[in-house]
Amino acid sequence: MTSPDVLEPSICRFGQSLAEQAHHHVPGFFDHRWWTRLLLDWGTRDEQFKVQLFRFIDVLPALHSDEQFIRLLKEYFQDLPTLPTALRWLLIRFSTHALPAQIGARILRRQFLRMAYTFMAGESVKHALPVLTHLWETTCACSIDLLGEASVSEVEAEQYHQRCLQALEQFHHIAQSWESQPILESDHLGSLPRIQLSIKLSALYSQFDPIDPDSSYEGLAPRLRSIIDLAQTLPASIVFDMEQAEFEPLTLSVFTRLFSEPSYRHFPHAGIAVQAYLAHSRQTLDRFLEWGKTRPAPFSIRLVKGAYWDSEVIRYQQRGWPIPVYMKKPDTDANYETLAKHIIEHRSFIRPAFGSHNIRTLAYIQALEESHHIPPGTFEYQMLYGMAEPLRDAIISQGYRLRVYTPIGELLPGMAYLVRRLLENTSNESFIRRQFETATSLDHLLLPPTNPEHHEQDGDIPDTQTLPDLSENPNGFLNEPPTDFSLEETHHVLTNALAKVKPLLGQTYSYPIASDIMCEGPELVSMNPSFPDQEIARFPTLASSQLNAIIESAQSRFPYWKAVDPHTRATVLFRTAELMRQRRAELAAWEILETGKPWREADADVAEAIDFLEWYGRDMQELGKPLKLGHAPGEVNLRTYLPRGLAVVIPPWNFSLAIPTGLVAAALVTGNIVLFKPSERSPMMGYHLIHLLQEAGLPEGIVHFLPGGPDIGQTLVRHPAIHLIVFTGSQAVGLNIIQEASQLTPGQRHIKHVIAEMGGKNAIIVDETADLDEAVTGVLASATGYQGQKCSACSRVIVLADVYAIFLERLKYAALSIPIGPPEQANNRMGPLIDHRALQRIRQYIARGKKDGTCILDRQINGPGYFQGPVILTDLPLSHPVAQEEIFGPVIVVFKVSTIDEAVKMANDSPYALTGGIYSRSPANIQQTQDGFDVGNFYINRPITGSLVGRTTLWRAQTL
Amino acid sequence: MTSPDVLEPSICRFGQSLAEQAHHHVPGFFDHRWWTRLLLDWGTRDEQFKVQLFRFIDVLPALHSDEQFIRLLKEYFQDLPTLPTALRWLLIRFSTHALPAQIGARILRRQFLRMAYTFMAGESVKHALPVLTHLWETTCACSIDLLGEASVSEVEAEQYHQRCLQALEQFHHIAQSWESQPILESDHLGSLPRIQLSIKLSALYSQFDPIDPDSSYEGLAPRLRSIIDLAQTLPASIVFDMEQAEFEPLTLSVFTRLFSEPSYRHFPHAGIAVQAYLAHSRQTLDRFLEWGKTRPAPFSIRLVKGAYWDSEVIRYQQRGWPIPVYMKKPDTDANYETLAKHIIEHRSFIRPAFGSHNIRTLAYIQALEESHHIPPGTFEYQMLYGMAEPLRDAIISQGYRLRVYTPIGELLPGMAYLVRRLLENTSNESFIRRQFETATSLDHLLLPPTNPEHHEQDGDIPDTQTLPDLSENPNGFLNEPPTDFSLEETHHVLTNALAKVKPLLGQTYSYPIASDIMCEGPELVSMNPSFPDQEIARFPTLASSQLNAIIESAQSRFPYWKAVDPHTRATVLFRTAELMRQRRAELAAWEILETGKPWREADADVAEAIDFLEWYGRDMQELGKPLKLGHAPGEVNLRTYLPRGLAVVIPPWNFSLAIPTGLVAAALVTGNIVLFKPSERSPMMGYHLIHLLQEAGLPEGIVHFLPGGPDIGQTLVRHPAIHLIVFTGSQAVGLNIIQEASQLTPGQRHIKHVIAEMGGKNAIIVDETADLDEAVTGVLASATGYQGQKCSACSRVIVLADVYAIFLERLKYAALSIPIGPPEQANNRMGPLIDHRALQRIRQYIARGKKDGTCILDRQINGPGYFQGPVILTDLPLSHPVAQEEIFGPVIVVFKVSTIDEAVKMANDSPYALTGGIYSRSPANIQQTQDGFDVGNFYINRPITGSLVGRTTLWRAQTL
Repeated sequence: MTSPDVLEPSICRFGQSLAEQAHHHVPGFFDHRWWTRLLLDWGTRDEQFKVQLFRFIDVLPALHSDEQFIRLLKEYFQDLPTLPTALRWLLIRFSTHALPAQIGARILRRQFLRMAYTFMAGESVKHALPVLTHLWETTCACSIDLLGEASVSEVEAEQYHQRCLQALEQFHHIAQSWESQPILESDHLGSLPRIQLSIKLSALYSQFDPIDPDSSYEGLAPRLRSIIDLAQTLPASIVFDMEQAEFEPLTLSVFTRLFSEPSYRHFPHAGIAVQAYLAHSRQTLDRFLEWGKTRPAPFSIRLVKGAYWDSEVIRYQQRGWPIPVYMKKPDTDANYETLAKHIIEHRSFIRPAFGSHNIRTLAYIQALEESHHIPPGTFEYQMLYGMAEPLRDAIISQGYRLRVYTPIGELLPGMAYLVRRLLENTSNESFIRRQFETATSLDHLLLPPTNPEHHEQDGDIPDTQTLPDLSENPNGFLNEPPTDFSLEETHHVLTNALAKVKPLLGQTYSYPIASDIMCEGPELVSMNPSFPDQEIARFPTLASSQLNAIIESAQSRFPYWKAVDPHTRATVLFRTAELMRQRRAELAAWEILETGKPWREADADVAEAIDFLEWYGRDMQELGKPLKLGHAPGEVNLRTYLPRGLAVVIPPWNFSLAIPTGLVAAALVTGNIVLFKPSERSPMMGYHLIHLLQEAGLPEGIVHFLPGGPDIGQTLVRHPAIHLIVFTGSQAVGLNIIQEASQLTPGQRHIKHVIAEMGGKNAIIVDETADLDEAVTGVLASATGYQGQKCSACSRVIVLADVYAIFLERLKYAALSIPIGPPEQANNRMGPLIDHRALQRIRQYIARGKKDGTCILDRQINGPGYFQGPVILTDLPLSHPVAQEEIFGPVIVVFKVSTIDEAVKMANDSPYALTGGIYSRSPANIQQTQDGFDVGNFYINRPITGSLVGRTTLWRAQTL
Repeated sequence: MTSPDVLEPSICRFGQSLAEQAHHHVPGFFDHRWWTRLLLDWGTRDEQFKVQLFRFIDVLPALHSDEQFIRLLKEYFQDLPTLPTALRWLLIRFSTHALPAQIGARILRRQFLRMAYTFMAGESVKHALPVLTHLWETTCACSIDLLGEASVSEVEAEQYHQRCLQALEQFHHIAQSWESQPILESDHLGSLPRIQLSIKLSALYSQFDPIDPDSSYEGLAPRLRSIIDLAQTLPASIVFDMEQAEFEPLTLSVFTRLFSEPSYRHFPHAGIAVQAYLAHSRQTLDRFLEWGKTRPAPFSIRLVKGAYWDSEVIRYQQRGWPIPVYMKKPDTDANYETLAKHIIEHRSFIRPAFGSHNIRTLAYIQALEESHHIPPGTFEYQMLYGMAEPLRDAIISQGYRLRVYTPIGELLPGMAYLVRRLLENTSNESFIRRQFETATSLDHLLLPPTNPEHHEQDGDIPDTQTLPDLSENPNGFLNEPPTDFSLEETHHVLTNALAKVKPLLGQTYSYPIASDIMCEGPELVSMNPSFPDQEIARFPTLASSQLNAIIESAQSRFPYWKAVDPHTRATVLFRTAELMRQRRAELAAWEILETGKPWREADADVAEAIDFLEWYGRDMQELGKPLKLGHAPGEVNLRTYLPRGLAVVIPPWNFSLAIPTGLVAAALVTGNIVLFKPSERSPMMGYHLIHLLQEAGLPEGIVHFLPGGPDIGQTLVRHPAIHLIVFTGSQAVGLNIIQEASQLTPGQRHIKHVIAEMGGKNAIIVDETADLDEAVTGVLASATGYQGQKCSACSRVIVLADVYAIFLERLKYAALSIPIGPPEQANNRMGPLIDHRALQRIRQYIARGKKDGTCILDRQINGPGYFQGPVILTDLPLSHPVAQEEIFGPVIVVFKVSTIDEAVKMANDSPYALTGGIYSRSPANIQQTQDGFDVGNFYINRPITGSLVGRTTLWRAQTL
């Protein structure tokens, strides 16, 4: 992995030469734009200020007035104890409404916004053309990158597509007039176009998703083909940028697939980025080179270190996935050198491009060039616009081809890009900062990455800070990670599981019944909501008149189970969790088919079931330990928990494994006997649960499986022997249970305890400072996830007037872009509603909404399944049933408000208070909403569904 | 405090001489009774074995068969990992039912029982006479001590009285025939009787209680006088033993009062013990000597170190009182020497007696004698029968008068005495053990107590083990100590408070009402249940139709109070607690008068109110901190608690300050607005609470005081704006509230939450191994405390057949002995029922009980107050209303059962499950009951009422 030591003397020589020449140049970034420099200087010294500064810069372009600017400036900085005096003075000044203050605000705001152009060439290609021309004149090629908001819809993806085509045309037009620069116009494999465009696949197709490579390819290919067609004509080179790690395999496969197509396999100006920080990048590169060998035309590889280290680490840790990047910076540097050598060695069909601002890396490439006797012009260096300009000039003056990666775009996306660059420039690990700012000696900078002194010097990326400390987790609980569907193998596992389950559909399942009673109730048939003729499973059921015998049998088992050690009871849960892990794909497949759940959500449901088992098991181990009260001598006071007795569990069908598992597991592990009536719409998933518990060693007669209709539930709830009713479902049924349970039947010697989780009519507030990319996707995910059939689903969106129109438009087109269909197909992000009754009920709500308000969208999907696409309604009175009642479908009502007060008041105007959220970058608005929005789970700048056990919600085993 | 160093050489000399002579004697205790020796040897080496051994010895005399003996032997020792092999072998052998095993059991049991006679002279005076005679013949006087069970009733106290008289007669009869022993028959102040009796005042009067010295004296004096009368005749000397520290002031005052009476002020043979381990003993002794100077006749002081160190420390710590004894053994030793000198110096009217087995102490007295040139025979040494026999013989042979303190009694009390002596002999600090067993050198043993080496050698009493570690308490919470009524000053404080409150009775109290509404409801008058004509206070009330306005006002204050920082809310509670501490006696006085509560319980109620304030305040400080959930990077998940809104608090009258304070404080501190309806029977105590809260700084409109009748409560409970109902009271009302609250009124957007604590029909099981002294007093305290008007009160006693008759008899006479009357008189341990309705209802239950069962006792008390003494019923069917319904009065139903299974089953046969308990010394029975008895608070070998905040019960601020 290391560069052979023989190169080190040359590396030193080249490095010294580069440094010497760089010193002749005044570093561009650090000599002009005093404002950027000043703020960066403060930020480098004060972490707290830096964080607020970058967050403020992020929200800046969303602010449309000086008043907003001043308000947010205060919100972000006013309470900062370490605020630099100059800024504090400004803030005080802005508190007056005097005219000079207003003018000052305008100037300051402009200063802030201009910072973006430190690293961007202009807001459009047209505006950037002088910059591009100037670069060319200074013997510097460029690759333009069209910054833009995330493509949340196909309309936006198509816009990006059109911008790409237009940029190529405009760029080509001006470039034709440039004078010849031979060094920039050919390499060892032939001529090079003057213009290059870097593109991001996720921007080109709004439904770009590694879960289904084929459909992603189908979505991307037409747009890609038209871009390549144009590039072939002009000519221009096209480079695929690399984004987050999950997109890497799909991006590579799109590249190889496209450029294997007959029309494009001869195109010699395609390129792709390779990120050296990915731990598996060598293997990827090898596979890629194998493919390249078979292709008749060369292509370019842009070797970079990778720009998303922090977010990759955080995101993968949040999901519990193995971290894909090197955790130590020197490992990345070393890998870069290895890959660089490897790429150079394949120069017969590769056009190498080395993106780096690291003097050691640049010198290493030169040393490689020398030692391999590589002809001049074989490779090029690449740097980012506005970064490390002295090094750039040194490289150019030494006669190398250098290409500047040049972002072009509007302020809104530009600011996010700016923040990324500023982070890089101020981080302690930054080579750039160390090269130009700190007193690090050149010798040290040129040490090989594997040298421990380099290592020490460089400072590790603080892995102790970013790696979660498991010891802090209660009992070491960690959420079961979701499946990473970007990995080819996981995709196959679920496809195979679906194939394995399908032949098993439609069978009749028998199950143990206490006292060997014969079932006298009607047969229960479970159907596939995507294909209403397809039977999932058949279950014999008991008549409600037969339940007395079951209850007597359950009572007889209570003393036994109560006396079993809590640890032993917990072990059953842990074993069940292990079985679920082993059969995860199969369980998800059944859930997909029985309840119409898309892949990711079915997978998450199994993971949540595992979480409940692990959580409640651990919880019981804690609760099972008697707690000593008081510390007086001569007495021992212990608090212990006792089970209640008979627990009726009535879960819903919408999390058909997780909720039954959670409710049954909690009641079980706490020592109760469970009477479990699965939803009549998902008995098969209930059957799986029972089966797994038994297999895990649960003794007979502890959980009684009682599939059937509402009469079963009602009979159980009313029975005087029942101690506890655990219900999750609709408000109407829940309230009824609460009332029923409060009646004491003669002979009943206890008060029934009801744990009822009922519906929601949840709202998200979107204010004028919100990141709309996130707000649109977050609202949509919250409202259409599992077709809106979640108690936590978003069904009301309250938008501040400033952004109402744009939000609504983006939301509409995003909603229009969601693939809908049978969820067994991985690409379908929405499946069917649970049954015909649900579809009818929801259609009635839609009709009422249309009658009394404005319908922005009503995506109707042809059957045979019970499909209903997203519906967006506006102009409805707040009191309208559609705005007040739980619809349990993908129906979104959008309200426009003028103030955040109004928004919070409106959000609270609901008989429900389950979840809620806000998208905002105003600390004051977030705080006000957090304080005033009366909901159980309140989310900030993220979707309001998908809470995680022990993390977004803290459940205790409540059934004691 | 230290002996002057000049004495040290003589002390050494005398000590060496004593040691030398002692070595000529084979130590009696350690050479015979091999069984005691063997067990002690094991016990010394293994703490766990020792504990089990002593507990086993304690229960031994209660076992009436070899089967029981073997069963208990196994229960105590079977699971002991370190059990000596010999004993393990025995246990295995006893598992067979072979005849030799049975015989072995009989022998072993006898061996165990005989251990008692290591330290006792016989089971009666008659049996002990040969021992006493033998002692006399060996020039050894004695003081007999009649061991007995605790006098739980006047019948038993009278029995003890008669035993004393009889013992004196019998002892006198034999002593007359003894030959003369001049050294034993006179001292410097004159002749000495041959016989001496040590008596315990608490055995002589069952209601001996420092809370009321006068009535205790009245109870004791007649019996004491007849004993002294006889002692004067015979003659005999009479010494008052000193018992636990709380009894010390009363014992001293009884002594001085009695021996100041004209008939007894000339009696020269009275004596009293002084305990050197009491930190204030020097002051006590001084006051005592002052009195002695004025008395014409001499008396004797028996200086001892004190025999109850462990139990004093534990009991005082449990109560939170300052510990009355020295915490370090050398301090006691040093104090002993100081006191000894002081006593010697008052020998002109004092007959000094020095009780000690410590060679240093004995030698110190001799050195004192020498240095003060005291004539021979001025003082005597005293030692315990069976202890330190070599030293005893050495002292005698040196010509000193020695008196052996000689317990005489039956096995039952003898075993407890045995355990005390064994503990002394096996403890690490034991001088006896060190003198005779360990290799401690004589030089070390003779060091002065103040010498650090002595100190080190001696080993501190392990104060870290016995002092509670406050840091372990959550938030440093400690229960407010009850008032120590054995202290003269506290008695006066409450007497004065009562005198101060009385002139204030009968006034009309106005209180702030929201929105300045005029009261339109009927006036509420609170009466004294001891004197039904005496008005406590008058309160204007609202009509229930006026409550809407109050509720609106309450709603308007919610946002304000909700937003107040939890710490600020907690501060109001802490300030209120401080005010209650300042007015503790006054509040108790009001409670005594308004609700008929005896002193100690009224005092405890104020303490519990303080506890609730301190506990909930601390609890909220904890709950107010957001809890971080999960440890994934890049996200912050916080769990915070929110108040619910409007809380209705409906407390009962039986803990008329504590429960309202607890319920109101929890609802308040969690941020709710409180609508507080005090019981119509104790509005004055509710008024005090409100007043104190306001004084502590609670803002206006946060708690609404709403005195009135049931219509007020009902209207509040039904109101749709109410979020939370907190109720403590009867089951009927509680169930009604639960049902009412489950109904949703139109417009109500939340489910009402009810926290209801309802009644009890609590049982105590008494098995055949129970310590009946404790069982009788514990049952009686549980059943008659506050006249049985507690939800936790004992109303059913389930007794194993073996002890049924004796338990019932003792219970009956104990119940007959309780002083009943207006509780403003401190001696009355029972006061009136709350009102006429309660008395009528209870009389109806009694009548039904008498009709269908057997009435063992029905103490009827003449009015004018609503008095009802204890009632004991038997032979009732378990299903009888008297055995099933909550009576809320001092009515006890006793059941006889044959097995512990039956007892547990019967105990569970109740619609209530609040508290329960067992008196037993069988580990198996305790475990079985603990596992099988389905109650919230289960108590072992202690009363089942009087739970303490944070210690016997763990409440959280539940109103979030």
